[in-house]
Amino acid sequence: MSTEFALSLRGTDGAARLGTLTTPHGVVETPAFMPVGTQGSVKAALHRDLEDIGVSIILGNTYHLFLRPGDELIARRGGLHTFIGWDRPILTDSGGFQVFSLAERRVIREDGAEFRSHLDGSLHMLSPERATDIQARLGSDIAMVLDECLAFPATPDAAARSMERSARWAGRCRERLQRVRAGDVAEVHATNAGQAQFGIVQGGVFPDLRSASVDATVAVGFEGYAIGGLSVGEPIDVMYDTVASTAARLPERQPRYLMGAGTPEDLVECVARGIDMFDCVMPTRNARNGQLFTSQGRVNIRNARHAEADEPVDEACRCYTCRRHSRAYLRHLFMAGEVAALALNTLHNLTFYLDTMQRIREAIAFRSFETFRQEFLRSVSRLAVES
Amino acid sequence: MSTEFALSLRGTDGAARLGTLTTPHGVVETPAFMPVGTQGSVKAALHRDLEDIGVSIILGNTYHLFLRPGDELIARRGGLHTFIGWDRPILTDSGGFQVFSLAERRVIREDGAEFRSHLDGSLHMLSPERATDIQARLGSDIAMVLDECLAFPATPDAAARSMERSARWAGRCRERLQRVRAGDVAEVHATNAGQAQFGIVQGGVFPDLRSASVDATVAVGFEGYAIGGLSVGEPIDVMYDTVASTAARLPERQPRYLMGAGTPEDLVECVARGIDMFDCVMPTRNARNGQLFTSQGRVNIRNARHAEADEPVDEACRCYTCRRHSRAYLRHLFMAGEVAALALNTLHNLTFYLDTMQRIREAIAFRSFETFRQEFLRSVSRLAVES
Repeated sequence: MSTEFALSLRGTDGAARLGTLTTPHGVVETPAFMPVGTQGSVKAALHRDLEDIGVSIILGNTYHLFLRPGDELIARRGGLHTFIGWDRPILTDSGGFQVFSLAERRVIREDGAEFRSHLDGSLHMLSPERATDIQARLGSDIAMVLDECLAFPATPDAAARSMERSARWAGRCRERLQRVRAGDVAEVHATNAGQAQFGIVQGGVFPDLRSASVDATVAVGFEGYAIGGLSVGEPIDVMYDTVASTAARLPERQPRYLMGAGTPEDLVECVARGIDMFDCVMPTRNARNGQLFTSQGRVNIRNARHAEADEPVDEACRCYTCRRHSRAYLRHLFMAGEVAALALNTLHNLTFYLDTMQRIREAIAFRSFETFRQEFLRSVSRLAVES
Repeated sequence: MSTEFALSLRGTDGAARLGTLTTPHGVVETPAFMPVGTQGSVKAALHRDLEDIGVSIILGNTYHLFLRPGDELIARRGGLHTFIGWDRPILTDSGGFQVFSLAERRVIREDGAEFRSHLDGSLHMLSPERATDIQARLGSDIAMVLDECLAFPATPDAAARSMERSARWAGRCRERLQRVRAGDVAEVHATNAGQAQFGIVQGGVFPDLRSASVDATVAVGFEGYAIGGLSVGEPIDVMYDTVASTAARLPERQPRYLMGAGTPEDLVECVARGIDMFDCVMPTRNARNGQLFTSQGRVNIRNARHAEADEPVDEACRCYTCRRHSRAYLRHLFMAGEVAALALNTLHNLTFYLDTMQRIREAIAFRSFETFRQEFLRSVSRLAVES
């Protein structure tokens, strides 16, 4: 079934790991960043542009795809890869995070979450079994278990109860996937026989809860493990400490995915703490708001000081936007509301993220990761963020 | 000065003409279609995509660029080509059409048109001299004279008075450009020494006025001639007849440009009547509304019948969109409001227009244009337009 799915560790430098993740749709060099393709499209980017800049895996949002165009329609088209015309790896989330944050009304019970669509108010149920079935129909290469997303801050008691529920849900998700794999769930036509499933460690910012969550999740047994419930408002040091202690307790031979992070600094800092995979809307969302990442800090392209700037966004950048266009033109496009502004900014920010991952992998390979980390953080912090 | 600018006729078939137009930024094979890049960007397309599908010349709108970011800013950047990073030919209109249709309030006098910006209500003056100066600063390869845009329908008297004013304005535009070329206008830093200027024939739907306008405009003497004031609501036969008689009276050795047209059928029918150049927002605007042109008629991608259609928009199309994506995916992207829908639809429609021009040129070269025309119109009219 999932024999195709494996992480091969090619080297380490401190806690940082260099690996090759094999999936049914090809390999992913890790540490890897996954651009977010919420509705089957990484916003303002075409697939060929993603391929050109070296994107090896994208993320799809189960909540959005379930509501529109629907997981059954996608399964009839042959699965998400075929439907969207992308044949590299895809990871799907469980839909839980969006149900907790986007849906209009939701009631969470032990069985699952009942919610109303943000599109038309229609009533739906997302249970561990349902989240597993939907992702089986989508046929992503990596499916995520349904977990309960805890609000921050939370009391230790609330965090403990939520973590325990997530652990129970993880077991139900795994059991369901095993039944789907065995062909025992008549209504589910799985479109990717080699789909892997990742468990998610919760436990808020409480080290003992995180440890207990690791143990309970690993006891269920998954092809990989994610750290959830971070990057939700906690202090940055707490996040980094939680990542470090949690990652250290996870199985060495399996991939570790930090969900929803982060800034370029977060990528470097969390690779340093043993993370292999990341996803975040930041590069694409900030691009659409005019904030661009550069080797010299962040640039707000709306700023009037770029109105007559003939230089590219980042002299050090290899992307199409930087090779072809000036800041002055990009500012004009943005102020004029041109679609090209979204596309060009997105291309640049994603290239910055992908290149950062490439530099991270090279630094680990050369066992110079700590030097790279220090230089990267110095360069990033050297210049203030433009408002 | 404009010695670089020349049309070389390579063949004819009936009234249809095959040519090569040489400009300061390279050659344009004619008959040619110019995508509209209103604000220095063909909406929802990147320059490299335009180059990939064979766009050899784009149109920029003087009204928009004058208001934002401003012709003087663009001149300081080295001209429009440098500013937008496009080094193939550019034609700019005079701004007149937008002043007549877009500006918030406008008063037209013999001197020129006073108007308020649609962006911020600021007051501006567009005179023949001003339109010439602005375009000299932009440095397009082809500048257009300022003409008076007549509302349709118009009485013969109103059409005659307007045509006569346009002829006087044409003379003033030409005189101004000669002074700019000679370096006699201190405040104008021209950014393209080889810029050509086209006159515009007006006269509504009245053959005698059109003839008089041709004679008056040719008497001034330009590098090329446009037919204006058509495709504004007149019956299609009247438009075609007016094009035919007007084109026949224009100088044989100079390019003929039909402004603002049109449908794919219009392109074929007006090439048959002696037109060399076209521009129209239709392929790009319709793309953004979900209407796609195909070899079998028009397709509205929003239509529910495409929800599970695995075939491409047009099996006969070579574009990236058709090679990679299904109608089902394109419909999903459009319904979900994804930016990629705009980009993919635009790429397809522009490819359809560009390929139509390529087929037109081949048909003229092989002296089989009439056969091509019959087949093309039969294919286009075979299927109803999807609403």
